[in-house]
Amino acid sequence: MITLQDCRALDTQDPLRKLRGLFALPEGVIYLDGNSLGPLPEATAPRVARAITQEWGEGLIRSWNSAGWFDLPQRLGDKIARLVGAHPGEVVATDSTSINLYKVLSAALSAPQADARRSVIVSERSNFPTDLYIAQSLCKERGCELQLLDDGDADAIAASLDERVAVLMLTHVNYRTGAMHEMAALTAAAHRKGVLAVWDLAHSAGAVPVDLHAADADFAIGCGYKYLNGGPGAPAFVWVHPRHADRFEQPLAGWWSHAAPFDFAPGYRPAAGISRYLCGTQPILSMAALECGLDTVLAAGPLGGMTALRRKSLALTDLFMELVESRCAGHRLALVTPRQHDHRGSQVCFTRTASDGESGAYAIVQALIARGVIGDYRAGNARASHAQDGLGHARGLPDILRFGFTPLYIGFEDVWHAVEQLRQVLESGEWRRPEFNQKHAVT
Amino acid sequence: MITLQDCRALDTQDPLRKLRGLFALPEGVIYLDGNSLGPLPEATAPRVARAITQEWGEGLIRSWNSAGWFDLPQRLGDKIARLVGAHPGEVVATDSTSINLYKVLSAALSAPQADARRSVIVSERSNFPTDLYIAQSLCKERGCELQLLDDGDADAIAASLDERVAVLMLTHVNYRTGAMHEMAALTAAAHRKGVLAVWDLAHSAGAVPVDLHAADADFAIGCGYKYLNGGPGAPAFVWVHPRHADRFEQPLAGWWSHAAPFDFAPGYRPAAGISRYLCGTQPILSMAALECGLDTVLAAGPLGGMTALRRKSLALTDLFMELVESRCAGHRLALVTPRQHDHRGSQVCFTRTASDGESGAYAIVQALIARGVIGDYRAGNARASHAQDGLGHARGLPDILRFGFTPLYIGFEDVWHAVEQLRQVLESGEWRRPEFNQKHAVT
Repeated sequence: MITLQDCRALDTQDPLRKLRGLFALPEGVIYLDGNSLGPLPEATAPRVARAITQEWGEGLIRSWNSAGWFDLPQRLGDKIARLVGAHPGEVVATDSTSINLYKVLSAALSAPQADARRSVIVSERSNFPTDLYIAQSLCKERGCELQLLDDGDADAIAASLDERVAVLMLTHVNYRTGAMHEMAALTAAAHRKGVLAVWDLAHSAGAVPVDLHAADADFAIGCGYKYLNGGPGAPAFVWVHPRHADRFEQPLAGWWSHAAPFDFAPGYRPAAGISRYLCGTQPILSMAALECGLDTVLAAGPLGGMTALRRKSLALTDLFMELVESRCAGHRLALVTPRQHDHRGSQVCFTRTASDGESGAYAIVQALIARGVIGDYRAGNARASHAQDGLGHARGLPDILRFGFTPLYIGFEDVWHAVEQLRQVLESGEWRRPEFNQKHAVT
Repeated sequence: MITLQDCRALDTQDPLRKLRGLFALPEGVIYLDGNSLGPLPEATAPRVARAITQEWGEGLIRSWNSAGWFDLPQRLGDKIARLVGAHPGEVVATDSTSINLYKVLSAALSAPQADARRSVIVSERSNFPTDLYIAQSLCKERGCELQLLDDGDADAIAASLDERVAVLMLTHVNYRTGAMHEMAALTAAAHRKGVLAVWDLAHSAGAVPVDLHAADADFAIGCGYKYLNGGPGAPAFVWVHPRHADRFEQPLAGWWSHAAPFDFAPGYRPAAGISRYLCGTQPILSMAALECGLDTVLAAGPLGGMTALRRKSLALTDLFMELVESRCAGHRLALVTPRQHDHRGSQVCFTRTASDGESGAYAIVQALIARGVIGDYRAGNARASHAQDGLGHARGLPDILRFGFTPLYIGFEDVWHAVEQLRQVLESGEWRRPEFNQKHAVT
């Protein structure tokens, strides 16, 4: 049996341990929700204060040049590129993940095709809903069809690809289960059938090693406010393989995507390369915060970078699984996340099977939060409203308790204490109290 | 002749004078570029610091509920509504102006039409280019045509509207000339021909009185970082008349536009009302700053609101015109902005006619900035690159010197000194120095 002392020993040996000092984490909190909103880096408050008082307040309009505001999407994009196996000049930080998906999916659907019958986007029903909504919207506009697979199995996905399919749109690490796809293998399967691969890296960038070039991906987008610690609603990012960058246009053709925006010419000419995936003026204060977040992940570089982060992430998630299954045994928790390392992102999810039909997942998470262990809850899809969506039947996905592990600031002793709090919540039955069952607007 | 003493007397009598204290303006600067980037409100730095350290740092993911992050687009939208003649619940603050234009123009083009031949968007060649680029992009997607008028004359615009036209897309106050359209009259002309009216309020919101309901407009969008003082790249806004809000969908159908985003259902159902014009997660730090900017304009409410701001704006721009024309006489400056009050926004532009063909406008602005008077320059369209845009011939629009007047923080004595600096720049010929002719990336 693993003990608290074992966990402390693991922390002592952890070469990444000092990175925790990069974050302003509140006292008494174990934060296992960095997969939803990364915590505050120490550097962010002074950096944003400087952007406000010096760059904006003193520099005023001049700061577009003197403070480098105009180049922020490219400059931050180059930092993100280092985390996802892209080259400098291939990524821009901009807009939201949903908007960037609209851009790349539009571009991918406009690819000239030898076979004009290609009008299907293949994805998974369990993909993050906003991706499915954007795809539905584009399908309606373009007369395409969204084909949703129930099963994230690689063989089932590969088997679904044929000469009718234009785009395979997948999220690399599933937001619910934490299951991770094999990006290179699935992209190769897509290319064998003449299909373009669009990857959503929302739960991958900064969480697991990603090598877009090695995987030969076509398009990728991702989120700035999860594992990249860019702050609430931080700008997202978009990458397009250089073989496609000048080949397609994207429809959100605002002036920041123009070849010469300050010519103020009435006719549109797209910029070369990834800059054509910009649209309008970017929120500079949020961009300044994003850079501080990116720097926290890049700070792991001299300590082994994403390889070292991944090694620790797997050790943390292995430990969490093992401790929950041993110390919370008898409380009907069942692991949802794949055990196999190369099929797992940086989060662990459990469901609770209940004889009374009420999983209790929401209330257990609330009770844990009250004890300072912050994870989150994701509703299953067995509820009535889901039957109305017109996209197939509910599949009885369970409610889940979701815990994200970010090796930058989570240690092995944190894992021990988190499990101990979970054990006490379950043993005491305190989660059945009414106050833990009051739903919030945002869950 | 008006004297410096006259200007000081006007300041003494100005009921809005104390509002200047709401801003952190640098010493020695007269800021006449609030039409490009509004200055820093005093409230912003502490408000954003609180959003960072307390809401994000301490509250972490819980702040989506406890700090009201999720409702910011609607809550800030309600504040904007008060400035543009909209009702509560009709506006959201979100994304960029370009992106919001894409949404409303898409919606307007999807209007069911008795006459299927309507496939033309009418606008002006002198509209802000990003509006034209977005319209070109949608035209390409939808098989529509963008018809650009050379003349902003209301009669010419009205005459261009016929049964082929789906949408009239205009910017209320022209970004170059400061000329203002009569919104109600042009909207009525559009409606008489069955045409929907889309208004860009980028240079109107917070600058001139706008009454979207009185004008019976159909759609409007606008900018948060100009006269609303929201900070560099602040989120923009979008308004849809309630008669249309539930009638159309917009294509950027991200999860924030869903009727029940936290159901995580795979099928898209648009939210009721203006919330369906959201898309993805918003940059919260930039939203927090935007709210401080909105509050500076709303602070004029007890002092007469937009009516009082407009009265002072006209007095300031009248004074500036008169002083430039009298004190800078003989320096070939020619007024571009309409003299007539109801055809003018809150900025004044001059061009310089030069015998050698080089207007000097850029260098004169640079020399003024070096003297602490910050206006800006907008290039004319006589340059070679404009011949390549495929949207008609260059019309020989002149280079301009552009000066924005925001009555919240600009006084009459400021106007005097600004003109005096301009006079000295012209008299001395110092603008001909090489350092004032070096172009920056952002002009």
